[in-house]
Amino acid sequence: MFFEKIKTKGLAHLSYILGSQRSAVVVDPRRDVDIYLEVAGKWGCRITHIFETHRNEDLLSGAKQLAELSGADVHHGPNAAADIAYAKVIHEGEKISCGDLRLEVLETPGHTDDSISLAVFDRSFEHSPVGVFTGDALFVGDVGRTDFYPERAEEVAGLLFESLQKLCALGDQAMIWPAHGAGSVCGDNMADRELSSIGHERMNNPLLQIGNRAAFIEHKLLEHHDHPPYFKVMEKLNLVGAQAPPRVFAPDPLDPDDLEGTDSVILDVRGVTNYLGAHIPNSFALPEEMLSAFAGWIWAPDQHLILVVTEPEQASESARQLSRIGFDNVDGYLSVSLTEWAVAGQSFVASDVVDTVTVASRVSAASDGWLLLDVRSAAEAASGMIDGALNIYVGELTQRLSELSRARKITVMCASGARATIAASILENGGFKEVDVFLGSLGAWTAAGHEICKPNEKAGH
Amino acid sequence: MFFEKIKTKGLAHLSYILGSQRSAVVVDPRRDVDIYLEVAGKWGCRITHIFETHRNEDLLSGAKQLAELSGADVHHGPNAAADIAYAKVIHEGEKISCGDLRLEVLETPGHTDDSISLAVFDRSFEHSPVGVFTGDALFVGDVGRTDFYPERAEEVAGLLFESLQKLCALGDQAMIWPAHGAGSVCGDNMADRELSSIGHERMNNPLLQIGNRAAFIEHKLLEHHDHPPYFKVMEKLNLVGAQAPPRVFAPDPLDPDDLEGTDSVILDVRGVTNYLGAHIPNSFALPEEMLSAFAGWIWAPDQHLILVVTEPEQASESARQLSRIGFDNVDGYLSVSLTEWAVAGQSFVASDVVDTVTVASRVSAASDGWLLLDVRSAAEAASGMIDGALNIYVGELTQRLSELSRARKITVMCASGARATIAASILENGGFKEVDVFLGSLGAWTAAGHEICKPNEKAGH
Amino acid sequence: MFFEKIKTKGLAHLSYILGSQRSAVVVDPRRDVDIYLEVAGKWGCRITHIFETHRNEDLLSGAKQLAELSGADVHHGPNAAADIAYAKVIHEGEKISCGDLRLEVLETPGHTDDSISLAVFDRSFEHSPVGVFTGDALFVGDVGRTDFYPERAEEVAGLLFESLQKLCALGDQAMIWPAHGAGSVCGDNMADRELSSIGHERMNNPLLQIGNRAAFIEHKLLEHHDHPPYFKVMEKLNLVGAQAPPRVFAPDPLDPDDLEGTDSVILDVRGVTNYLGAHIPNSFALPEEMLSAFAGWIWAPDQHLILVVTEPEQASESARQLSRIGFDNVDGYLSVSLTEWAVAGQSFVASDVVDTVTVASRVSAASDGWLLLDVRSAAEAASGMIDGALNIYVGELTQRLSELSRARKITVMCASGARATIAASILENGGFKEVDVFLGSLGAWTAAGHEICKPNEKAGH
Amino acid sequence: MFFEKIKTKGLAHLSYILGSQRSAVVVDPRRDVDIYLEVAGKWGCRITHIFETHRNEDLLSGAKQLAELSGADVHHGPNAAADIAYAKVIHEGEKISCGDLRLEVLETPGHTDDSISLAVFDRSFEHSPVGVFTGDALFVGDVGRTDFYPERAEEVAGLLFESLQKLCALGDQAMIWPAHGAGSVCGDNMADRELSSIGHERMNNPLLQIGNRAAFIEHKLLEHHDHPPYFKVMEKLNLVGAQAPPRVFAPDPLDPDDLEGTDSVILDVRGVTNYLGAHIPNSFALPEEMLSAFAGWIWAPDQHLILVVTEPEQASESARQLSRIGFDNVDGYLSVSLTEWAVAGQSFVASDVVDTVTVASRVSAASDGWLLLDVRSAAEAASGMIDGALNIYVGELTQRLSELSRARKITVMCASGARATIAASILENGGFKEVDVFLGSLGAWTAAGHEICKPNEKAGH
Repeated sequence: MFFEKIKTKGLAHLSYILGSQRSAVVVDPRRDVDIYLEVAGKWGCRITHIFETHRNEDLLSGAKQLAELSGADVHHGPNAAADIAYAKVIHEGEKISCGDLRLEVLETPGHTDDSISLAVFDRSFEHSPVGVFTGDALFVGDVGRTDFYPERAEEVAGLLFESLQKLCALGDQAMIWPAHGAGSVCGDNMADRELSSIGHERMNNPLLQIGNRAAFIEHKLLEHHDHPPYFKVMEKLNLVGAQAPPRVFAPDPLDPDDLEGTDSVILDVRGVTNYLGAHIPNSFALPEEMLSAFAGWIWAPDQHLILVVTEPEQASESARQLSRIGFDNVDGYLSVSLTEWAVAGQSFVASDVVDTVTVASRVSAASDGWLLLDVRSAAEAASGMIDGALNIYVGELTQRLSELSRARKITVMCASGARATIAASILENGGFKEVDVFLGSLGAWTAAGHEICKPNEKAGH
Repeated sequence: MFFEKIKTKGLAHLSYILGSQRSAVVVDPRRDVDIYLEVAGKWGCRITHIFETHRNEDLLSGAKQLAELSGADVHHGPNAAADIAYAKVIHEGEKISCGDLRLEVLETPGHTDDSISLAVFDRSFEHSPVGVFTGDALFVGDVGRTDFYPERAEEVAGLLFESLQKLCALGDQAMIWPAHGAGSVCGDNMADRELSSIGHERMNNPLLQIGNRAAFIEHKLLEHHDHPPYFKVMEKLNLVGAQAPPRVFAPDPLDPDDLEGTDSVILDVRGVTNYLGAHIPNSFALPEEMLSAFAGWIWAPDQHLILVVTEPEQASESARQLSRIGFDNVDGYLSVSLTEWAVAGQSFVASDVVDTVTVASRVSAASDGWLLLDVRSAAEAASGMIDGALNIYVGELTQRLSELSRARKITVMCASGARATIAASILENGGFKEVDVFLGSLGAWTAAGHEICKPNEKAGH
Repeated sequence: MFFEKIKTKGLAHLSYILGSQRSAVVVDPRRDVDIYLEVAGKWGCRITHIFETHRNEDLLSGAKQLAELSGADVHHGPNAAADIAYAKVIHEGEKISCGDLRLEVLETPGHTDDSISLAVFDRSFEHSPVGVFTGDALFVGDVGRTDFYPERAEEVAGLLFESLQKLCALGDQAMIWPAHGAGSVCGDNMADRELSSIGHERMNNPLLQIGNRAAFIEHKLLEHHDHPPYFKVMEKLNLVGAQAPPRVFAPDPLDPDDLEGTDSVILDVRGVTNYLGAHIPNSFALPEEMLSAFAGWIWAPDQHLILVVTEPEQASESARQLSRIGFDNVDGYLSVSLTEWAVAGQSFVASDVVDTVTVASRVSAASDGWLLLDVRSAAEAASGMIDGALNIYVGELTQRLSELSRARKITVMCASGARATIAASILENGGFKEVDVFLGSLGAWTAAGHEICKPNEKAGH
Repeated sequence: MFFEKIKTKGLAHLSYILGSQRSAVVVDPRRDVDIYLEVAGKWGCRITHIFETHRNEDLLSGAKQLAELSGADVHHGPNAAADIAYAKVIHEGEKISCGDLRLEVLETPGHTDDSISLAVFDRSFEHSPVGVFTGDALFVGDVGRTDFYPERAEEVAGLLFESLQKLCALGDQAMIWPAHGAGSVCGDNMADRELSSIGHERMNNPLLQIGNRAAFIEHKLLEHHDHPPYFKVMEKLNLVGAQAPPRVFAPDPLDPDDLEGTDSVILDVRGVTNYLGAHIPNSFALPEEMLSAFAGWIWAPDQHLILVVTEPEQASESARQLSRIGFDNVDGYLSVSLTEWAVAGQSFVASDVVDTVTVASRVSAASDGWLLLDVRSAAEAASGMIDGALNIYVGELTQRLSELSRARKITVMCASGARATIAASILENGGFKEVDVFLGSLGAWTAAGHEICKPNEKAGH
């Protein structure tokens, strides 16, 4: 028997391949599926079954392609929003054999109507399941979000409560293998640990400490999660199945001249301090590790992009990450460094960066000519802000630029300065001239002993 | 947090490295330790603690070296046979921090007096341990052997019983991470699965179904395990700590001429059918994947060896495997194939191979001039043999050649033909001229519908 | 500037990718083209031009696919047998820029009518070409074969003579980069060295020592090269362009039962001694490293195949090699070893192997009941055979089985025993019951001091 | 036969391993020698000879260690500054066999007294050498520097002239394999191409166009090369042989707190724009790719260092590069990004960056309060500077800080801004408060159409 977890960074997505004898099954494959074929091949197994634990909003599924390449069947839970052309529907209690393993289907709706879990038994030791693929129903330290059917919010939160009882009934001994780890947009409170069991969750997961259904529903209704616009696109594409991505991700190298007059978005993925040090005018900052989380907030997947990178390998890796959320139009990447860009006589921008001392003095001065813009999420802002700051979530900033006055100097902050840098680039592209970035942001602020105030204490602005 | 299992094939040895924040700990490192430094480096962690769950008999520990290379402390349980110069002793209940993790020591003697287990807690979710390193106390599907102190057999079996109770008390939710997987000489009945939990074992492990101490002791006393002679050597070397192995395993390539008159043992690791097809006269057959299990039965670790391989990479890999059990004198490898060996005018031997039909007819004929030699273990033989066969375990054959008559033709068998091939090469080296190998052996025999008889039904020979 | 040689083992095929600034060119890509995209990507270059130095008979070109994946143009020489749909024709003297490099076309017909060479200049040092891609016109130690137009044999040999003069005129300083290295079916006398220059060849290549055209033609007309039947197929497929091979080569693992009654050819690629030791009845022996050279002699590319391998990775690699010569119907591979095959109760064959002593005594005995079959090429046989042997080339044996009597015992030999093993398997499949393999073959024979006789001295048989 | 070039980036160092039959030779191994053992092992060869073409000043040789690990002999030319304890001296005309290859020694002094070259013959094609290892005598597009014996400058330039004649006498056909490629401190004008031959150099290398000895000497005497202080250290260490570097380069991860009050130099290798965007106060900028060229200018090899990196892998790679020039005291690396550093409440510096427009206006203003500091080499400065700039080479800046007034604002420039960033960090560490970096530097200046003036036209400052 073998078991491999395939983790996709950025998305914090976890997929799995496991096998026994000559057969293997794959759970929740991502779009670039070569790796599953390679792993199965290495272990001398044929992929016979592919499972989707739920419809995906945050990434493109590779189930359809993998089925075509391997000859395996795709299985999907009942009650999907629409027929999934490439998949067969499976129901509670169905059993699938894979060598010495047996998988059993549990319908675990709540996160989505079509959510299923898959309990895994070793047929040689079958008094209890070894583990369970929990999809987006149960995570390590958190449970699935239940805000995808706003008009049925109570109902689906209740469904999830019951699904979790069903999972707990598998027994404390069952290991859990969820579809996401810490860092996913599908849950804010996941543990930075990918090892757990039903029992460990039962005893430690805060959401499983809520003993009754009503209280659980109440808790879930108070949660706030983001709904990036690309979720709808992913959902739609996943109903028909994504196209195969390129065999090799090798975007075209571009000369400085090639960027002149381009209509494509120039996306600088080199990281926060590289962008702050020098960047191409009107490029957007979006560090590589934040691509999956934020690209879909700001652009539609058909947006044409030109990347600014530290080296060709980063262009390749970024294009791969973008393809996983449907961005297939990477036109190329700037083949030189910003230093060489400057050598070529091209203009560049060095961002203004400020620290706590500066921000503190400005806060004290409280001038009308200056705005402190906090681009953290509403939930984060609710737990405390610097006095006088205005909160607009970075994901929504492009849509809400009109709320800001171009006459004021703006300092952008978040928790650390990373999202603030993205936001500053959005402002720069929006024509705001006087923008600086508070590096360290709220972290530095509190480390320096400054106070934060809760929303209800805040003065308006 | 990260967690990586490092599996060493051949030995079926499992070691672990896990870390959190900037710190990492290693459990039961093998002799070639570069991999632990590389993994820690990749995750941005420093190795701060190294644990040995017990003294090792079946492999050389890398703990001493890894301590020197990383600056970490080595921790070993109390009651070791002698002071371990390079390690500190830890006791029941001691706690070690590693970032967000906390490890707690459980003394779990039985397999050895110095056996410990290490429960792992996530400090953010600490109502119960996430998992436990069980060393050789508890495996997936089996428990540790208790035959290393023959004069205290009952006592140590009882100790293990109590240690297992202590482990079970950690709760069903705790995952288990033992020091061996299926294929190890440290347990015959391990599952071919490396995922389990205390709860799953409590419900499924046959040894944990034995509810009372006396019955457990009785069961353990009836077990038979092998005691290869190299165990004593490993044990002794591990008290002082093994020397560093070479940086790169690259044995010298040798020409056919270089093998003439050599005093070294010629070890053919190419595999069963390659050896049967053609081999160097008086070479020993020991397929690469069987090196770790059998080399130490037949030779002392200081034996000089020349390898016969399919390609240079196999020489390198074989030398690495041999070094893990202390064989550091690989003088080189034959740099040509057996075909080229023959082209060079060197003599070769093609083994005689027989199948079920032939063996069945010989069994029927039951001639005094022919012996069917079954080289499986005594335990295997006890469960049934072909009528008339003589059982001598392959590991002991070198010492027991005098029990066999050179006047008889000998057919060697085992379960499949693999150990029989090793045995046939031992016989060839012992001067036996009329030897053939029953390919398929007991498996083929029973697949063909032939009967086997239990020892007490056997006729003598 | 970068320059990478991509060597394809088995075919001894050499392709090249080189680049400067942001551009790269590829010369003679093989069918599985991902590697060119990866190398170009790693160097930050875009592939802008693909060159085919000549139509290929011995392998499938990847030019068409690579053009589709990269957007590059394919360039092919004039005078091809037919229009090559996916390529543009280039002519003598055309210049192609690639960053600081300039390539210049030389028409160098002879091997084929459409053969071109490409001289490479560094524009910063351009008094003479740095090197030249010589395709199949000039090799290290040999020149291209000129037997593809039998009716124009003298003419094309003369054309090659002139092409070689043209290449020599590039100057001694020019390095040469041919399309094949030692081991190719495109030339028998290539050096086992892939580094040379026009000057080194001019002074050392035996064919370039022939100073006049007539003598050169005479020499070439006396050469004999093989014409495997698949050459015609490759030629035809290359006119339209090969289909993309699979993204991942992962043939299906098959159980012993799956092979029962199969119509597919069972191809044992495990190597000579593995096959001799034990093989599946009626399987064919074709060691992995001989696949490219011999599969196309024995079967048509659409033949369905089941592989017998030592491990899954060999199945993958073999399927990849087969795809390069158009064999796309690998149905799977036997997932167990021959030992396990036997354990499953399946029948197997252990080949009879003989050595020089045995063959010498049989030769002396010279019985009518015994035939020594020498399966080397006619050219090899012409340089000397064992007295009394019959020569049929292994590549032609399948077609010429009717020349052999099933009543005689046959010993098969070649130079070493490798091709003899292939031949023995062909005989076994042809229903010949009494066949053995002379391991060491002519090499062992002469090493033992036995004589060989030239054909005209040979007695008939 | 195999031939592999091992290129060491940063140093632009080229070493070689080649082999035939079972033997391999290594030419000019670097300090981390595992790769040579791995390559030899892969090809089934034993390293039998190691050659040093000359004493090395710019890197540590691995010859001694490789000899110990492989059992090979080390060969060094005659006339070394002192006995090299671990090497045998070889002389003109000595021949060394390596399978089918033969190497012949040519004494080619000039660069150093002990410089040798090694002509390589293929014994099957031996009318002329295939190629020649030219050490630091002849490069692609340049020849060795002759300024290591200042008191014998004419003599050694003349020696090199004669050595080059000797090399040319090997014939145009011989490929050349020098010890350095473009980017080395051992030659300024090397081609960005690593493929050449004696003939191509004879026709294209500017230095080989100088037909007579006197003119050649005159030319060489006018050259100026840098003499970084670490050259003397390398030279000395190479006489006795360097210690083995660590098996694995895995520097310790450090928390922000760990850097407080450190005596170690904080070395920021993240690259130009990352440093400019935000850096730790009093850290030094030295981008990873410039480590080999500049670390030895600024610090002695026993300097303790703490690295600031983008990721753990960069720490490992930087430590490896530093070890090649003798820096073995890397105490660790900052384990967090500058953003996280700021979050932790630590102070940071964002550099001031200026562009051509700003510099041009300052140049026009020509204030006494402002200095334009050009840190290019004297040779570069001699070819033209911005009017009013002061030239101090970056390598010498640390020693010459006293020449600068702390009262003036300083703008630092070089050719691009990279070395200017290093220099700005040296100034910051020297207590200069008003420093900015001209990104794009002379490249941007000329791209914008501004003038430069030759030194003799310059006004003073």
